[in-house]
Amino acid sequence: MDRHIHRRKKTAVVAQFGGPTSVINRTLFGVAYELRKKDFEVWGPIRGIDGIMNNDFLILSEFSDLKFNNIRRKPGSYLGTSKFNVNDDSAGEIADKLKAYGVNKFFMIGGDSTATIANRIKKATSKINHDIDIIHLPKTIDNDLVVTDHCPGYGSAALTVGKIAFGLDQENRSQGGIHIQVIMGRDSGFLAAASALLRTDGGPHLIYLPERSFELEFFLRDVEDVLSRTSNPSRAYIVVSEGIRKYFEEDGELKYKLIADIASEELNEKVENEENLGGISLSVGSSVMARYLSNKLQSAFPQERVRADVLGYVARSFPDVSVVDAFEAELVGRDGVKYSEMGSGSVIINRTGHLHTYSVNTEFVTLETVAGLTRSMPMNFIGSYGKDISEDFLDYAGPLIGPVPGFDTDHLLPLGWEHRFDYI
Amino acid sequence: MDRHIHRRKKTAVVAQFGGPTSVINRTLFGVAYELRKKDFEVWGPIRGIDGIMNNDFLILSEFSDLKFNNIRRKPGSYLGTSKFNVNDDSAGEIADKLKAYGVNKFFMIGGDSTATIANRIKKATSKINHDIDIIHLPKTIDNDLVVTDHCPGYGSAALTVGKIAFGLDQENRSQGGIHIQVIMGRDSGFLAAASALLRTDGGPHLIYLPERSFELEFFLRDVEDVLSRTSNPSRAYIVVSEGIRKYFEEDGELKYKLIADIASEELNEKVENEENLGGISLSVGSSVMARYLSNKLQSAFPQERVRADVLGYVARSFPDVSVVDAFEAELVGRDGVKYSEMGSGSVIINRTGHLHTYSVNTEFVTLETVAGLTRSMPMNFIGSYGKDISEDFLDYAGPLIGPVPGFDTDHLLPLGWEHRFDYI
Repeated sequence: MDRHIHRRKKTAVVAQFGGPTSVINRTLFGVAYELRKKDFEVWGPIRGIDGIMNNDFLILSEFSDLKFNNIRRKPGSYLGTSKFNVNDDSAGEIADKLKAYGVNKFFMIGGDSTATIANRIKKATSKINHDIDIIHLPKTIDNDLVVTDHCPGYGSAALTVGKIAFGLDQENRSQGGIHIQVIMGRDSGFLAAASALLRTDGGPHLIYLPERSFELEFFLRDVEDVLSRTSNPSRAYIVVSEGIRKYFEEDGELKYKLIADIASEELNEKVENEENLGGISLSVGSSVMARYLSNKLQSAFPQERVRADVLGYVARSFPDVSVVDAFEAELVGRDGVKYSEMGSGSVIINRTGHLHTYSVNTEFVTLETVAGLTRSMPMNFIGSYGKDISEDFLDYAGPLIGPVPGFDTDHLLPLGWEHRFDYI
Repeated sequence: MDRHIHRRKKTAVVAQFGGPTSVINRTLFGVAYELRKKDFEVWGPIRGIDGIMNNDFLILSEFSDLKFNNIRRKPGSYLGTSKFNVNDDSAGEIADKLKAYGVNKFFMIGGDSTATIANRIKKATSKINHDIDIIHLPKTIDNDLVVTDHCPGYGSAALTVGKIAFGLDQENRSQGGIHIQVIMGRDSGFLAAASALLRTDGGPHLIYLPERSFELEFFLRDVEDVLSRTSNPSRAYIVVSEGIRKYFEEDGELKYKLIADIASEELNEKVENEENLGGISLSVGSSVMARYLSNKLQSAFPQERVRADVLGYVARSFPDVSVVDAFEAELVGRDGVKYSEMGSGSVIINRTGHLHTYSVNTEFVTLETVAGLTRSMPMNFIGSYGKDISEDFLDYAGPLIGPVPGFDTDHLLPLGWEHRFDYI
């Protein structure tokens, strides 16, 4: 009885998963804002599944507008995230909790593995006959979800990578020598590719992506070529994705070995497994790889000053965001609430206009459509010989970073967008 | 005779030295703009002293306004820099060249060692009776020149460090664990200290500077304390200057050993000397130190996720600058031309108003005043126990980063400044 007095309202949970982005709190805001209009009580679990299991929630629907506006503008996941591994057993436990709390809607902001978890939990709730809509809202700086044109979080990270690469190219132009920058992106090169978005004076001269085989011999020849084409000073500014790898055929199958792994073997450094969800720790691997590549270059070009840096988390947490990305991150949150009337699923972004007429709409697909699947950079986004990006990539990614003051990026925020956000 | 037909105008050389900053081209612009008004021919040597010795100049006074406006807004040294070591012999050769070219004024944009070189060249020109004014214009992201209130280049680098630290603190807040960031600054902690300028949610929790002895035992205790004060997740975001060191007394003298050196000994890694002007290569040293500190922390706190990153050159080449810093960088260039009527010397910045009434003027001092001298952070800028900065530092550095959209930094560009720049 008591319980019904306190719980007149319908209840929704909105949670954040995986690595943060600079705009993930915009999606959180979009969901909470729309749900509040529908008179939902909105709960935000602290650290994702942990918060649900431990009954540790913030009541987001009680936050003041001022407070929410501050949260919305911060990078990082306001609610926190954790590495809770959800198998069929734990999905059952989560379903039990959601039923016990009387949750009617569950919004999960995350990448492809979050969609997999969403799918598992949805099946578990069906098993116990709990009626709940589970909505996956896309988020990843890697931009590697399938079906969607692009992912919220990518545009802002791409903008920061573009600005940093522009600056470091000017730095390299001043000082000469070889500068290598390692940029995040485990299996797709979208973020490393963004280093070309504000390219002005030639650099990055070379961009290596996980989508093409990295051959040390060709790499050294490419660098030699750049050094010979530049003068006074001779220089090369090079971007490599952390996930670059060497492909080979074995037993008729295409396999690969990460350059980070080759580097750690050669430098005899143990690269520990930091991530629960498989793979080596690329945070450590990147710095070993940076040293490995820098050693190889120093041997090949002893007269050049060689420097290698790892960018780390800077691009995914920088506070200055792409306006386009920020708006879209809110859009998927808001539209996700509308779509939830139709049941469970995932929100994707369609591009409906290109370049100067850039525009998008959203669509609702089944969880199975996106769960556990990732995509790489398409062929036509990669330049010939796999050591640069293509014009097609610039046309694709240019509008996502929005207008950049001081640069000739004349793709502006599409007219009329302000009408989609009634609180502006 | 031919020569006089081509050389009706007085000639000035303006050159860039040392590591670049995001606003060093603004000083170049300020000098060229004022000199052009005085009908000087303005030469820019490619790569500093190299360009002078090899007769390799750009004629800056012939650049279009549009071209110069583009250059002015770029980070990095447009003319390039090199590591030419100027002793008394080479100063004589440079003086000979300047006399042969008929150069009347020589503007040198750089740090304290540039002022030393300026002084040497001035003496050498006197010896051969060549009448020339040599003007040192301050530039350094380290902010370590003496007498001047602060140095052009610092404000913009500090702004970028502040934004990055804000973002990485939100990242650490989302994920938990220990994150260490190594930030440039060989002998002074000004740049590492800037990580606190936009501090919002507690981090950086600890900031270590070269001005205080770094004791591993106290460091681990400090981190333990932060971890115990944070919860769900427990976390610590830590900034260390690349130049942190352990001080000790030997033979009655205060000496020190860099933590980067201690790290490279313990990890048995050779840290090669990359810089001509002394010291170990901190670019390599920083990454060795990052691994060393991260290993120590992982042993002390095995349950925590530990990550260490080196920021590298990002902060000194980022294209988004502090408006205050950008204006001041132009100001020292422009005022330098005016002061050059008085002879040789160095331009310094005086602070004439504080906080909300922040204002500056410039002053002309002798080359000897600044040559070869550096300063550390003053005592009152460092927090108690040397593991943080003080309120006094925030009052000092806050106005230098200018207004930051989205943050409560209400120190605006001082009123009336636009009148000092007649091209606005």
